[in-house]
Amino acid sequence: MRTIDWNDESNSIVMIDQTLLPVEYRVIECKTLASLCEAIRSLRVRGAPALGAAGAFGIALAAELSSADDMDGLTRDLKVAAKTIKATRPTAVNLAWGVDRTINAISDAYDVDGIKDIVLAEAKNIADEDVETNKKLGKHGAKLLEDGDTVMTHCNAGRLACVDWGTALGVIRSAVEAGKDINVIACETRPLNQGGRITTWELMQDNIDVRLISDSMSGHVMSKGMVDKVIVGADRITGDAVFNKIGTYTHSVLAKEHEIPFYVAAPISTFDPDNWEDTVTIEQRDADELRFFKDVQIAPADVKVYNPAFDATPMENVTAVITEKGVFHPPFLLDEVIV
Amino acid sequence: MRTIDWNDESNSIVMIDQTLLPVEYRVIECKTLASLCEAIRSLRVRGAPALGAAGAFGIALAAELSSADDMDGLTRDLKVAAKTIKATRPTAVNLAWGVDRTINAISDAYDVDGIKDIVLAEAKNIADEDVETNKKLGKHGAKLLEDGDTVMTHCNAGRLACVDWGTALGVIRSAVEAGKDINVIACETRPLNQGGRITTWELMQDNIDVRLISDSMSGHVMSKGMVDKVIVGADRITGDAVFNKIGTYTHSVLAKEHEIPFYVAAPISTFDPDNWEDTVTIEQRDADELRFFKDVQIAPADVKVYNPAFDATPMENVTAVITEKGVFHPPFLLDEVIV
Repeated sequence: MRTIDWNDESNSIVMIDQTLLPVEYRVIECKTLASLCEAIRSLRVRGAPALGAAGAFGIALAAELSSADDMDGLTRDLKVAAKTIKATRPTAVNLAWGVDRTINAISDAYDVDGIKDIVLAEAKNIADEDVETNKKLGKHGAKLLEDGDTVMTHCNAGRLACVDWGTALGVIRSAVEAGKDINVIACETRPLNQGGRITTWELMQDNIDVRLISDSMSGHVMSKGMVDKVIVGADRITGDAVFNKIGTYTHSVLAKEHEIPFYVAAPISTFDPDNWEDTVTIEQRDADELRFFKDVQIAPADVKVYNPAFDATPMENVTAVITEKGVFHPPFLLDEVIV
Repeated sequence: MRTIDWNDESNSIVMIDQTLLPVEYRVIECKTLASLCEAIRSLRVRGAPALGAAGAFGIALAAELSSADDMDGLTRDLKVAAKTIKATRPTAVNLAWGVDRTINAISDAYDVDGIKDIVLAEAKNIADEDVETNKKLGKHGAKLLEDGDTVMTHCNAGRLACVDWGTALGVIRSAVEAGKDINVIACETRPLNQGGRITTWELMQDNIDVRLISDSMSGHVMSKGMVDKVIVGADRITGDAVFNKIGTYTHSVLAKEHEIPFYVAAPISTFDPDNWEDTVTIEQRDADELRFFKDVQIAPADVKVYNPAFDATPMENVTAVITEKGVFHPPFLLDEVIV
């Protein structure tokens, strides 16, 4: 099944619970806005494009659950829901994008049922378009990979970060589909280990060769000539920087030092022309993520922790941004790409 | 108590079990060579200088346990023990150094009891000298730190890596002792989290300010101006490179990019003038270290893993090496330093 989807029978959102992987594959159902918000906050669903769909389906769910019997009342309910959903991951631009696009679609409706139909249809469109976008993006990016390449990646910009196929891993999938032999080095991606838990799992499901390393090893494997290219996803791309999972910036500096191409694979919806590196607030996550791994204590329980969710990679460190509209080499203006 | 010591009553080696920290502080006793070797292999005792003492006390223990009744037999037993101990951590030059120095001391003996007395006395000397060495090293290094500095460190080059006081953390302790206010950023140091578990713990015991980050965050914190200096320890220093815990090289590249001084604190016994970067074999550790954290599965159980214990930081990336004989700025010849 897709990473996140709408269940027409139960009128609810279904998703793969990514916090349980790779130990357990479990599909969960969100029947309330609270359970969806909890799922987003706890990273049961994560990854920029998947969050776009999550935001969109969230509005559809809010419409479904609303008891308002006039358009004004329903619109008010949806706007409250929009605010609630966006607040769960304030740095994730796609989440807000999915919410807003769905809300904006209701201007076509002329009654309460119309609104409900339109927001659900729009959310489903967003999910379908995401898969199509990734396939296009993958095809563009696959041309950058050569037969026999070893590609290093960070976090999970795979099908589980999207509705399906993936961005960074979508490029790898498209290259493999085109008959190229690609090996992957997955960085485990502390503190929540999306690389170790999810990227490895989804590549192994597809029989794509993958080796796991700790994030700290990236310099070493590059210096040993073990990496031909780096491909990562993005949570937000401003005119001057790529915001992505904490650790991405570190890999970009190392790639520059070793003259290894550093690619960012992300749909156009990730672009944020209204912000710059210094106008984006990076969320700090819970300190316990570095003190415990599930029930295992891995640091003093009261140690001070610095735990930013993202970092910013300056565009100078990026060889190219791979989108569904093609491959763009910095420097470029976001407006040229978005139009 | 010291990190590792000799118990005169039970004629055994006592040590703090570092695999249990920070959850539990437990002192264990090694009464057999097998238990010592297991403790070294499992990193119950770790850190270059502490391993020097472990190797030395290991020879003293082998002498104590030998049933040989002539000098030739006892010498043979000690040479077998030496080989066994050295094989537990082949990259750790201090372990071999402690073993060899203790073995070499027996040339002064004229009977079996003389050998036993001499190897124990020599092992105790090595432990005492280590503390003295670190205090000297700390004093030299402390001059490089300014009041208010934030120092980033990797792994644990603290008192628990030594017999006492520490090398990288010894420099910080000496600066604090000299009245300077020093803040520490500790990288957790995957996969065995010595930074998160041990460095944080020992600094908190001493009321030195410490914040924990994941290894991948080092680029980010440097780019944000949060790091004034980096100080790490070393497992082996060849003429062209510093071998230290995997991840050190990554930090060194990032420090260079951000023009942050990168210091290595290590006793002269760490210097290995007989090798170069490309003649040292880096041990690969167990793949399960990246698949499990204690009992928690953090990756597919059958995922391929690349897990080198160390990496090599080229001397060009090192601002200075801090030793008990003073501070040396590359380029320098090892022979100049060792003499």
